[in-house]
Amino acid sequence: MADPRFFSNRGPLTLGRLAEIAEAELGGAAEPDRRISDVAPLDMAGPDEVSFLDNRRYVAAFTASKAGACVVHPDFAGRAPEGMALLVTRAPYKGYARIAATFYPAPETVPGIHPTALIDDTAELGEDVAVGPFAVVGARVKLGAGCRLHAHVVIEAGVEVGAGSEVMQGATLSHCLVGRNCLIHAGARLGNRGFGFALDPQGYVDVPQLGRVIVGDGVEIGANATIDRGAGPDTVIGDGCKIDNLVQLGHNVRLGRGCVLVAQSGVAGSSRLEDFVMIAAQGGVGGHLTLHSKAQLAAKSGLMHDIPEGETYGGLPAMPLKDYFKLVTLWRRQLKETEKKKDG
Amino acid sequence: MADPRFFSNRGPLTLGRLAEIAEAELGGAAEPDRRISDVAPLDMAGPDEVSFLDNRRYVAAFTASKAGACVVHPDFAGRAPEGMALLVTRAPYKGYARIAATFYPAPETVPGIHPTALIDDTAELGEDVAVGPFAVVGARVKLGAGCRLHAHVVIEAGVEVGAGSEVMQGATLSHCLVGRNCLIHAGARLGNRGFGFALDPQGYVDVPQLGRVIVGDGVEIGANATIDRGAGPDTVIGDGCKIDNLVQLGHNVRLGRGCVLVAQSGVAGSSRLEDFVMIAAQGGVGGHLTLHSKAQLAAKSGLMHDIPEGETYGGLPAMPLKDYFKLVTLWRRQLKETEKKKDG
Amino acid sequence: MADPRFFSNRGPLTLGRLAEIAEAELGGAAEPDRRISDVAPLDMAGPDEVSFLDNRRYVAAFTASKAGACVVHPDFAGRAPEGMALLVTRAPYKGYARIAATFYPAPETVPGIHPTALIDDTAELGEDVAVGPFAVVGARVKLGAGCRLHAHVVIEAGVEVGAGSEVMQGATLSHCLVGRNCLIHAGARLGNRGFGFALDPQGYVDVPQLGRVIVGDGVEIGANATIDRGAGPDTVIGDGCKIDNLVQLGHNVRLGRGCVLVAQSGVAGSSRLEDFVMIAAQGGVGGHLTLHSKAQLAAKSGLMHDIPEGETYGGLPAMPLKDYFKLVTLWRRQLKETEKKKDG
Repeated sequence: MADPRFFSNRGPLTLGRLAEIAEAELGGAAEPDRRISDVAPLDMAGPDEVSFLDNRRYVAAFTASKAGACVVHPDFAGRAPEGMALLVTRAPYKGYARIAATFYPAPETVPGIHPTALIDDTAELGEDVAVGPFAVVGARVKLGAGCRLHAHVVIEAGVEVGAGSEVMQGATLSHCLVGRNCLIHAGARLGNRGFGFALDPQGYVDVPQLGRVIVGDGVEIGANATIDRGAGPDTVIGDGCKIDNLVQLGHNVRLGRGCVLVAQSGVAGSSRLEDFVMIAAQGGVGGHLTLHSKAQLAAKSGLMHDIPEGETYGGLPAMPLKDYFKLVTLWRRQLKETEKKKDG
Repeated sequence: MADPRFFSNRGPLTLGRLAEIAEAELGGAAEPDRRISDVAPLDMAGPDEVSFLDNRRYVAAFTASKAGACVVHPDFAGRAPEGMALLVTRAPYKGYARIAATFYPAPETVPGIHPTALIDDTAELGEDVAVGPFAVVGARVKLGAGCRLHAHVVIEAGVEVGAGSEVMQGATLSHCLVGRNCLIHAGARLGNRGFGFALDPQGYVDVPQLGRVIVGDGVEIGANATIDRGAGPDTVIGDGCKIDNLVQLGHNVRLGRGCVLVAQSGVAGSSRLEDFVMIAAQGGVGGHLTLHSKAQLAAKSGLMHDIPEGETYGGLPAMPLKDYFKLVTLWRRQLKETEKKKDG
Repeated sequence: MADPRFFSNRGPLTLGRLAEIAEAELGGAAEPDRRISDVAPLDMAGPDEVSFLDNRRYVAAFTASKAGACVVHPDFAGRAPEGMALLVTRAPYKGYARIAATFYPAPETVPGIHPTALIDDTAELGEDVAVGPFAVVGARVKLGAGCRLHAHVVIEAGVEVGAGSEVMQGATLSHCLVGRNCLIHAGARLGNRGFGFALDPQGYVDVPQLGRVIVGDGVEIGANATIDRGAGPDTVIGDGCKIDNLVQLGHNVRLGRGCVLVAQSGVAGSSRLEDFVMIAAQGGVGGHLTLHSKAQLAAKSGLMHDIPEGETYGGLPAMPLKDYFKLVTLWRRQLKETEKKKDG
């Protein structure tokens, strides 16, 4: 069971109810009235718990699992152990997500302003806003209904945060307009002065950074991530983007809808990612590039050119991923040939 | 116009005044008394706004721009659209920087100690210091005149910060001496105990880190950057260095004057960067190396050897950049030959 | 001498006492009663100071050093300058560490709760706990004896921190159980909601992250590092692990005992590092991999496969390091041959 120190279980739930929640068909040893008390990983689940299989790597764990029920893709249903109830769906991870969120709903916001928080008189707070200890809310800030600012959050003057958004501990927001239902993690820094300066024999001359950070709805921004404000144009993050921990976005970067940037990746100034672009962990995108819709960049790759729509690039420097894999194969062959020559 | 929620416009200014500020010659359709109300990007500027062209990529945008005036290099002046006033200079980005800083000067510091800030009795504060809410200033700290500490900044015992320096939200300074007119961004961590320990069969033995971080004048340190203090010698950052977000400097690293370290780059312990060295984004420098004056390391490159004066290295492992480009060309040719063999 | 603004020297100590502390034999010009006043680097030490030689690169500095005494490996003792007292040991860095810690012991914790700190009534604090200004300690938190929380630390509800652990400025701990004698640096974020969501045509569906972060004893976690909590299983960090600044650990990552992760490295979700695995700076480990005991990954390398016990991998993509070195040699030869063809 999830540790009750941190999570509160609303179960049990019947298999029939779980099938509804997961939009799944009941199969295997499933009796709709059977009660399931919790979710658990495949290798830890017991007979009154539900698990899921989403990754081919874990089929053996699935087959060996003692879970009472499992959310599973039809392709793998046949590999289930005897007696396991199945919740069969083509989207098992999503089905599991919904089940887990029903057992363990997000803690309800307790509205209220902590007495140590500082709220400027000119700030406008919507209904049911929660502001944690030592948070600082500056002049003319607007917080939508149900916003939740955790301890030590700083919202600088003029910033707007849409309804239902949550800002975790110690994050700082300046020069930005944030949409609804966003989640900004601990220590994230939005709206910093971008890295803009002119080279000059007498030293660098700072260029005023006169843009903002515009964040759409339903965006997640990871812990200790850094998002610089625009230099004149804005830095823009489209609806539904998922930005992981320690990601860096330079000034004027524009992300379309639903982009995913995995941990420690970075995008240099003025590059544009169209809708649903994905950058894997530690990937780097050079400045002034365009990654067209659904383009992907593999982990640790360094991109110097645009990526056409729907294509995946990888390597250093990044090239079409299939070319990169061929190149790696070629390197391995060359290595073997070198070995042979030595032996021969 | 820059969003008035965040920026305050001091315009309009005449073209003649702008030319003085930018150290530029008036050209094109320039009448010295014509009033310009604002700065704007090329593609958004209107007839009473001034823009700039600094990057060859944007010549088409320049030619199509509706900006009333533009700061431009003489080489591109001929590509201006009809009717555009030109401010011609060999340093257009610097010229624009000065114009933008005149329209939008940095907000003036309002001196004063926020009532929630904690200032140790033994701290010495210069004139006109500003200290934000919940900031903590420890014993024997010295803050020069006009220093500005934002909300939640922590300055540990003994630290000194020179006149005119600004420390953004939530940054922490310990074991360091910071020069004048520095800008330390939100969440930066200076003076951490470096990663120093001796390997031992009974476990790692921590080595006391007895040095400091010495920061020169006019240095910028990015958001969430981490600068460890020296192990015995100091970690040193020379005057005018520009360090971007999420950069890591290990113990005993020494940077000369005017070094530029772009986002997410890192320098391992005891390496030395002489004056005006540049490390592009996500670059990594191994320990105990020397990058001689004006050396450069390309983005994402991993350096295992010294770089001679003025040379640029790149790749993994890093080599002279021209060799790396040749190697990449070679790889592409080998790939093509492999394809041909398959087809042939 | 270490800057008295930041460090307090408990010397002098006799050479005889230093030899005991370093578990070293006296050699060279060593008189046991001679008093040594301080530690110093080889190139800065004077006749009443002790230094150390641990790295072959610095033998010349050793031979030229004016240090009165030096901790040194027997292999290098013969290279000492005349008149230098030697403290000869096969573990000179460890010996130096112990000597330095005797001259400069860690500052003693002054127990007590700062009046601005917020401690929930249900929190349980052991003896001699120190809590700094503006720290926030939530409901049901347990802090072991001698724990030290610095300014602005946030410990969320239910978290437990073992005796003798220290949490530096502005770090946040949620959903975690931390062992004894740990050191968590400034701005580190433990227990964030991991990057877990199901892809879906209607947008991403967040998967509740129901695990914890379990941190063993004697663990060090660097400044601004980010450690996500588990998704269902826990994220686990074994006893004695050393995690450097800006490191990222994804959900469900498991580290054995004594793992070392150098700055800016990252481990993707569900990967497992057995005991004493080392990841050099900026290294990246893909998801769902196993790095067996004492495996090593070279700096900036990107790992897509498991590493067998005791082996070292490197490169992008990572391969056995000796193969990678051969490949680099091969590239260099190919480059030369290409040059010759052009010339020929």
